[in-house]
Amino acid sequence: MDWQARLQEYLAPRTAQVNAALERYLSESPPLPRVLPDAMRYAALTPGKRLRPILCIAAAETLGGTAEQVMPTACALELIHAFSLVHDDLPAMDNDRLRRGQPTVWVKYGEAMAILAGDALFAKAFELLAEQARLSPPERVVQVIELVAQASGVQGMCGGQVEDILCEGQTVSAEQLRFIHTHKTGALIRASVLAGALLMGADKPTRDALDAYSRALGLAFQIADDLLDETESTEQMGKPAGSDRAHGKATYPALFGIEAARAHAQHAMQEAIDALQPFDTRADPLRWLATFAVERRW
Amino acid sequence: MDWQARLQEYLAPRTAQVNAALERYLSESPPLPRVLPDAMRYAALTPGKRLRPILCIAAAETLGGTAEQVMPTACALELIHAFSLVHDDLPAMDNDRLRRGQPTVWVKYGEAMAILAGDALFAKAFELLAEQARLSPPERVVQVIELVAQASGVQGMCGGQVEDILCEGQTVSAEQLRFIHTHKTGALIRASVLAGALLMGADKPTRDALDAYSRALGLAFQIADDLLDETESTEQMGKPAGSDRAHGKATYPALFGIEAARAHAQHAMQEAIDALQPFDTRADPLRWLATFAVERRW
Repeated sequence: MDWQARLQEYLAPRTAQVNAALERYLSESPPLPRVLPDAMRYAALTPGKRLRPILCIAAAETLGGTAEQVMPTACALELIHAFSLVHDDLPAMDNDRLRRGQPTVWVKYGEAMAILAGDALFAKAFELLAEQARLSPPERVVQVIELVAQASGVQGMCGGQVEDILCEGQTVSAEQLRFIHTHKTGALIRASVLAGALLMGADKPTRDALDAYSRALGLAFQIADDLLDETESTEQMGKPAGSDRAHGKATYPALFGIEAARAHAQHAMQEAIDALQPFDTRADPLRWLATFAVERRW
Repeated sequence: MDWQARLQEYLAPRTAQVNAALERYLSESPPLPRVLPDAMRYAALTPGKRLRPILCIAAAETLGGTAEQVMPTACALELIHAFSLVHDDLPAMDNDRLRRGQPTVWVKYGEAMAILAGDALFAKAFELLAEQARLSPPERVVQVIELVAQASGVQGMCGGQVEDILCEGQTVSAEQLRFIHTHKTGALIRASVLAGALLMGADKPTRDALDAYSRALGLAFQIADDLLDETESTEQMGKPAGSDRAHGKATYPALFGIEAARAHAQHAMQEAIDALQPFDTRADPLRWLATFAVERRW
């Protein structure tokens, strides 16, 4: 079996588990407030790669844990990802109307509801991160919450999105582009891997190796994303192709050209795989995911 | 000395401490991202009552703690309040241009930056809540995080804001109005009091008494807010007077009339004070704050 088939076999049950848990966590629907719970479910349950929960689970499994043991945290990471997409798509931000093949949340529910659905998903994520304390020692849980909060905020995802917007239509330096990529997507990908490791009580050398892995993975994933936007069809991706170029976004292909961007992505992928050298075959899913990050078509 | 002078004497040093801590927590400014740290500071450092941090501190002091011992959590609560104001003021929401006597964040920094400043303040709040673990046992910190996350989300602040928006210009029932008030402002006020108590390791009867206090206080505070909007000047409040009526908002005076709303507020104030019966004079600031909630003019 090649890596693709093995990754598929690995992903199928775990993605199903994550989806079932997300459903459960978002199932509560008292009579009030109206609409908001539906908007939250719409934002978070539309099919997606579930990359962040899977990375959290795969990191925990690498260190002898199971998916069940980290599920609240894994799902929290997906909710934070969903929250960021809902806000990024708003008219005042990227003004996107299509996401995962569906109308974006603000198109379907209006802007006010999209802002609040994003906020409420973010809040729900921290509720789940705290709920993790029913399964893990609270001192580890608190470390994870601090890490995830930092990865989401001004020196993480929000900061990356700010620079992404400010750089639209501008000439950007390699340094600015790197900031955007490592913050806008990289920070939460890194936090996902490290969260799984922290919950298993990983020691410093283990955390350092997974830190190096996750940084390289995040970069590889985002360069690949830039490339897909240039080379794939709208239908294939479920969101408008060529939208980065249309928005004048700072991307690797725009700054370095398609070939050099491909080489960058390959290099980052190799770096990610090399960082996993200390680990046995339980880290294989993390290895396949590094390859997938670059070779995927969506 | 009357309660007002004693409250003033109580508030002055603590408000200064909270403001200094907020400054410190928001002082970090690496070169990137641009603008966002300024927008966050603008949103959070503009002078305000600091009611939520003060409630957290006063609850901790009631149980023998100090302001320093709960400062990260106290400031986190203020950041969540600031985040909610930034998002509520957006054009897609309440479309308000004036707040605390200044242009609102979206007027000064644009809509995209206001959305992201709100998000980043919310993230920073959870970072601070987790940082509390350097001062308090992590199992208590995790409880506080779960409580605060719930109070902020779909069954708290966000849920209340949704119903507030959906009820604009509609005939509302007393039940809907109560939902809006207990969720939009009440939930975070309650969480502020209980957070201070949880961090001090309060037992169940103590938590129950403070829970009753905080629920009544939140209601008293919000009815008073509705009344101020009807009766005070824009200059006095630093935000447009009569804006609730102009927006067709569901309020106590609109539903019950000004006199009945005043009686409601007085009744809730008395309920709050009665709930503090088990506590000694260390709970006096909480008592004065209940009176202030109703008798204030801003």
